[in-house]
Amino acid sequence: MSPIVKRVILVARPHGIPQAEHFRIEEVPIPILGAGEVLVRNRYLSVDPAMRGWVSSEPNYAEPVAIGAVMRAHAAGEVVESDVPAYPVSSVVMGEFGWQEYAAVPASAVWRVVDDGLPVSLSLGVLGLNGLTAWGGVREVLRPEPGQTVVVSTGAGAVGSIVGQLCKAIGCRTVAIAGGAEKCAVARDEFGYDAAVDYKSPAFADDLAAAVPGGVDRYFDNTGGAISDAVLQHLGRRAVVAICGTASVPSWDPWPTGPRVERVLLTKQARMEGLLAGAFMSRRGEAFAELAALVRDGRLRYREDVLHGIESAPDAIAGLYRGDNLGKRVVALDV
Amino acid sequence: MSPIVKRVILVARPHGIPQAEHFRIEEVPIPILGAGEVLVRNRYLSVDPAMRGWVSSEPNYAEPVAIGAVMRAHAAGEVVESDVPAYPVSSVVMGEFGWQEYAAVPASAVWRVVDDGLPVSLSLGVLGLNGLTAWGGVREVLRPEPGQTVVVSTGAGAVGSIVGQLCKAIGCRTVAIAGGAEKCAVARDEFGYDAAVDYKSPAFADDLAAAVPGGVDRYFDNTGGAISDAVLQHLGRRAVVAICGTASVPSWDPWPTGPRVERVLLTKQARMEGLLAGAFMSRRGEAFAELAALVRDGRLRYREDVLHGIESAPDAIAGLYRGDNLGKRVVALDV
Repeated sequence: MSPIVKRVILVARPHGIPQAEHFRIEEVPIPILGAGEVLVRNRYLSVDPAMRGWVSSEPNYAEPVAIGAVMRAHAAGEVVESDVPAYPVSSVVMGEFGWQEYAAVPASAVWRVVDDGLPVSLSLGVLGLNGLTAWGGVREVLRPEPGQTVVVSTGAGAVGSIVGQLCKAIGCRTVAIAGGAEKCAVARDEFGYDAAVDYKSPAFADDLAAAVPGGVDRYFDNTGGAISDAVLQHLGRRAVVAICGTASVPSWDPWPTGPRVERVLLTKQARMEGLLAGAFMSRRGEAFAELAALVRDGRLRYREDVLHGIESAPDAIAGLYRGDNLGKRVVALDV
Repeated sequence: MSPIVKRVILVARPHGIPQAEHFRIEEVPIPILGAGEVLVRNRYLSVDPAMRGWVSSEPNYAEPVAIGAVMRAHAAGEVVESDVPAYPVSSVVMGEFGWQEYAAVPASAVWRVVDDGLPVSLSLGVLGLNGLTAWGGVREVLRPEPGQTVVVSTGAGAVGSIVGQLCKAIGCRTVAIAGGAEKCAVARDEFGYDAAVDYKSPAFADDLAAAVPGGVDRYFDNTGGAISDAVLQHLGRRAVVAICGTASVPSWDPWPTGPRVERVLLTKQARMEGLLAGAFMSRRGEAFAELAALVRDGRLRYREDVLHGIESAPDAIAGLYRGDNLGKRVVALDV
């Protein structure tokens, strides 16, 4: 008899942020390896803000996860059976393996072999999608220059903390926006920001103004919404805004309104650009080599927020949007 | 006794679009030439949508025109006295000469000598600020590729008509948005657009959708507001939006709201960028040479809307926003 394993199924399409009740944990026989597939025993499941978009019926960059399907997710684990020579048994891989204990997937689902000698969970964060997003956002979109002021919303977060450190290394003045005193302290003390502003404070607008006296040259935007509205008021000439996420917008149905941006962009000759990590996939070898070297040298710091057991996955996205986590959220499968 | 000449003075700061009552026509002695100056007898005064911004107290890219000062404007005319060797008497020049019959200005106010053998008034339109804006917008911001769909709001207007023709020459599919059946017909018949959509029609949203079945790759935006909101719904992957004007937004005080753009830019990896002609000043020689050659060959068509006499200037900006004109609006001084 096959062993029984667990997986997380999407059972309802959320209106807004996915909550625990939109998922169900299912027990099924361990998947059977197909031709050209690898069977991966997942060790870490990723929890990402982008998952809200993946389960939404709103138009997005990919088809939504189907009702009744395993939740789409990055995960990392070891190959326990293989019909793909590139990924032999006992190699450690990361890729689109879903929220499940075991995944039988084609070779195309594997992003990469994790062989950098660093903790496996980092392949879901600083050495995974988050790292690639931050690296590409800085190197290809923001392209900040030394001395420029860079603002990062969710500056202490999984992507933002990397953006802040990469920009600081370039010689920029870095300003984090984060929720609460603890995250602001971490932004300054661990991630080296020159200033951190608490968006939950009633003095947010004034604090932000005080933190960017010369205006904002570059803005890496993980939140959208009212936080971005405040930042855009300080946009400098020829500023660049990289839009990476909309964490502070609770729902896109009905579509929310906000202050119009046309005139700010026009009078400042500024640019706003949407940013998806997929655009940098072709440079991921270069990105991960650079990021891994920085991590090894202690020049790139990270925080992880580790939940335990697949049972913690269904509520984990909602927790991100509540701001429960400090650092990259992963679910460790201690099976 | 010096001859008496007329000039247009800004007498009140408009809330929104400048109307005739915000200006006064004043009679003064002809200006006296100072050291390093030229005295220009203006033949054509320019009327531009950007003038709304120039008289507004809202933050802009330049200081607002002071109350009591001559209205800032481009103009073209001949030099009648000169203390600048580069601009001898009887040369024809264009530059920032203001809404006045005669201007005594320093050499720095002169944009260029008009010596291309084409009508002098064109130096305020297709061979002036409009042409440079369109040329730079296409060559440096939109950078469309053959086969792409380009939408131009105010597609039959002074800037839009040039954008449409330059993109058509590249091999794009061009779609104009214009107000009313006549402007739509001109857009198609004179400016060669593949389609023209009337934003004043109750069927605008459907007509636009029908005109861009494959989505919008490039959008040259002269209007902002609800027209742009409609276009953004059809934005394609990696689309580029050049923001050149906000003609359809009646006032920025209070600051208007509209549908948030963050998610569209993010999911489409699209880019919005503000565009001011000043950015292309260093390439103006190249731009005007190319545009003049196209005009001479009949490959770049233009329309002019000529008002007569300085008395017609004060109401001329409001008329632009009412959509009274078809083509580049100038005031001819038949003095």
